[in-house]
Amino acid sequence: MPPFPARRAAILLVLVPGLALPGIVAAGAETNAGLEPAALKAMAERLRTEERSTQGAYERLAWLCDRIGPRLSGSPQAAAAVGWAAATLRKDGLKDVRQEPVMVPHWIRGDEEITLVTPVTRRLEGLALGMSVPTPPEDLTGELVEVDSLDALKALGDKVRGRIVLFNAAMWRDPDGEGYGKISPLRHAGPSAAARQGAIGTLIRSLGTLDARLPHTGTLSYEEDAPKIPAAALSAEDAMHLHRLLQAGETVRVRMRLDCRTLADAPSANVVGDWRGRERPDEIVLLGAHLDSWDVGAGAHDDGAGIVMVMEAIHLLKSLDLHPRRTLRAVLYMNEENGTRGGRGYAADHAEELPRHVAAIESDRGAGPPLGFSVAGGPGATETVRGFAQGLDAIGATAITEGGDGGVDISRMRAAGVPLLGLKSDMSGYFDWHHSRADTLDKIDRASLADGVVALAVMAYALAESDTPLPRLPPQP
Amino acid sequence: MPPFPARRAAILLVLVPGLALPGIVAAGAETNAGLEPAALKAMAERLRTEERSTQGAYERLAWLCDRIGPRLSGSPQAAAAVGWAAATLRKDGLKDVRQEPVMVPHWIRGDEEITLVTPVTRRLEGLALGMSVPTPPEDLTGELVEVDSLDALKALGDKVRGRIVLFNAAMWRDPDGEGYGKISPLRHAGPSAAARQGAIGTLIRSLGTLDARLPHTGTLSYEEDAPKIPAAALSAEDAMHLHRLLQAGETVRVRMRLDCRTLADAPSANVVGDWRGRERPDEIVLLGAHLDSWDVGAGAHDDGAGIVMVMEAIHLLKSLDLHPRRTLRAVLYMNEENGTRGGRGYAADHAEELPRHVAAIESDRGAGPPLGFSVAGGPGATETVRGFAQGLDAIGATAITEGGDGGVDISRMRAAGVPLLGLKSDMSGYFDWHHSRADTLDKIDRASLADGVVALAVMAYALAESDTPLPRLPPQP
Repeated sequence: MPPFPARRAAILLVLVPGLALPGIVAAGAETNAGLEPAALKAMAERLRTEERSTQGAYERLAWLCDRIGPRLSGSPQAAAAVGWAAATLRKDGLKDVRQEPVMVPHWIRGDEEITLVTPVTRRLEGLALGMSVPTPPEDLTGELVEVDSLDALKALGDKVRGRIVLFNAAMWRDPDGEGYGKISPLRHAGPSAAARQGAIGTLIRSLGTLDARLPHTGTLSYEEDAPKIPAAALSAEDAMHLHRLLQAGETVRVRMRLDCRTLADAPSANVVGDWRGRERPDEIVLLGAHLDSWDVGAGAHDDGAGIVMVMEAIHLLKSLDLHPRRTLRAVLYMNEENGTRGGRGYAADHAEELPRHVAAIESDRGAGPPLGFSVAGGPGATETVRGFAQGLDAIGATAITEGGDGGVDISRMRAAGVPLLGLKSDMSGYFDWHHSRADTLDKIDRASLADGVVALAVMAYALAESDTPLPRLPPQP
Repeated sequence: MPPFPARRAAILLVLVPGLALPGIVAAGAETNAGLEPAALKAMAERLRTEERSTQGAYERLAWLCDRIGPRLSGSPQAAAAVGWAAATLRKDGLKDVRQEPVMVPHWIRGDEEITLVTPVTRRLEGLALGMSVPTPPEDLTGELVEVDSLDALKALGDKVRGRIVLFNAAMWRDPDGEGYGKISPLRHAGPSAAARQGAIGTLIRSLGTLDARLPHTGTLSYEEDAPKIPAAALSAEDAMHLHRLLQAGETVRVRMRLDCRTLADAPSANVVGDWRGRERPDEIVLLGAHLDSWDVGAGAHDDGAGIVMVMEAIHLLKSLDLHPRRTLRAVLYMNEENGTRGGRGYAADHAEELPRHVAAIESDRGAGPPLGFSVAGGPGATETVRGFAQGLDAIGATAITEGGDGGVDISRMRAAGVPLLGLKSDMSGYFDWHHSRADTLDKIDRASLADGVVALAVMAYALAESDTPLPRLPPQP
């Protein structure tokens, strides 16, 4: 039963002038009883009051960060996170809570030391990039050549042969994380591109927005047919220092020692649990986030916040008996950071069931204030979501953008036509901490985290309750 | 010859209403030709234009940070800094540029690793405190007990026996650096106080104002008759994590491995150079800062900025032929950070000459926007300095406070009655970087650094030019 009585759109428009897009609301009000903006607003307010009081998401995140901590795929902590997540979903009363096996890459960092050796000696603050090969036993020392783009690298042609390439471009701060999108190909594709031109190693100015001598790691993506060379991130300050030396015409030499290794793939799991719908339990709205994190911080923003938002959104709806007609499914993915085995595994293992996945929402943009959702769906999906999001105006999460793929993990269901939503947060501060030692619990704002839970819960409820599912994406072969 | 014609105070007051303290200006205008606020303002403007154009201080600082870097007493880099400073002062045309020998403590960091071992395992971000003894060869592991003050430690009495004490108090951000003054006794005195009660080691939440998993080192001060126990600083995040575990009632155990060592005292030097006064060369206005820095950053704010301000203030006056009647002396002290041997050595070696030191100004508060000066002098000294500082109102450095000791290095001349001034900077951001890996060149704002040079130059000029020296402090036995 819908928790709030349906109201007429006409009354709504009088009560909240300028709020509604009349076409949407009128349609929604007539066909989606209980999902009118005023009803969803009242629900959001109720959820918000409850979450701010219980601090349920924050308490879960505190446990994940403080008692489990960094949890890179294949690590004991990742295994502990899987166990904790499954136990917590069971305690929440979800059904069929299960660990769905996936084999994950098992990369370990080991000792590492990056040193400027010419023209002065200085220990540099760096971190191997995830999945990097180690340096040779005798270390790796080379002359530095600096570029600020893949095009600039290409233009150097043979001049990088035998050198260490420094990818040195500053990232800008913005609420959408667009700066990261623009610059991250340097980290992903840079090592193989440089290797093809004969480079012996690569360094990259950390993809981050706060200069606090804090290196930010992240994965690289070796191309199969290119030589694999060691790659590490440097703190912004160190990259600027090297730049100044190079600009002064110096020959700059750096020594890299990375003892990282990739072991055999390790067994791990996605954690999945259902709150079965009251009328159409076979139709699924999936809420996803990722359990794994990088190995150097506590994975608070990335993606502990998403994990606890997903858990708590369902728990909160359940505890207030806001039971939608379709099933809400928590999927806590493994290995988003360095392999996406969880995302791919889920899509493959559930291929038959994907036609009954009516929507998926991913939360993997940190715990900044929620802003709204990205929507990739069939014709009209965006407008429907925009209508639902009007219930979130008190928490400011009404911005709906069309496009994207919702997030790395759920994107693997795109080919099956599943409508994909991504919870958007204000990412202005996110990349200060992302993939660094400093992605720790204290960086989480309790109120913003609670608002994220509410945004996710309300949108998930609306998608699971609506008379008609969102129009699907055109299936791809 | 004074560079600007004297003007009548009455005219000044009309031209710049509300600017002057009439009593001061009237006195100054009659007795200190060329040092009226309007004249000093014009001088400041000229110096500022020149410094902003040449970026002389910044260029020197870039060299010190990028080519020499961290320069803890006794290190090869400290020796390089001494050589560079002496060569630079000679190139600037100063006379009698000399390296005045001092023996300095020679502490070296070595490897270090601090690990949370119970109830979870986590590598903690820490740095040994300067002058700490090492941990025993088998490492040091103990249960943590947390206090937020020396009083709280005392109240625990025997309960800290066999434990590691965590001094855990957050520092506040303020423009005056008062937060540091309040909290730094925990770092200085905490280890010996804890050792007297039977503790086996101490940790301290870093004295810093930015939480970026960045530990801040700094010296401790062992008491002679207390047991010496190892001591380290932790990042704020780690201290908060430990606090949460302790608050939850956990037994928290930490392992410390500090391989730091104190070697035999090493030979080093203060670097001293004079620009001899045009009329009273035997009377000296001393400009001081310290050449040494901690071993983990580049010593940009602490105290590379002070060093280049002192050098450049004299160089700038000299290059514009603003030649005061008394001698301007640059004293670039060694070992402010962990022993003050330079400050004590200079005062002892120059004891006979100190009666002719008419004033000393220290710059050791970073390169934030200059705010004014602290003044410790005889009756009327503060008012005279306040009058001179009115020439600095365009750069906002007019705030004059009475008291203090000017700075750690020059304070050693207090007993001899030397009037002591400290250049005050806005320290709101200073403790984000102070004593950390992130005290690097990029943290320096060029305009603020240039303004600091101008503030120092104008005040030094006025003190060296004035008809009557500042009233001296009452000599102490």
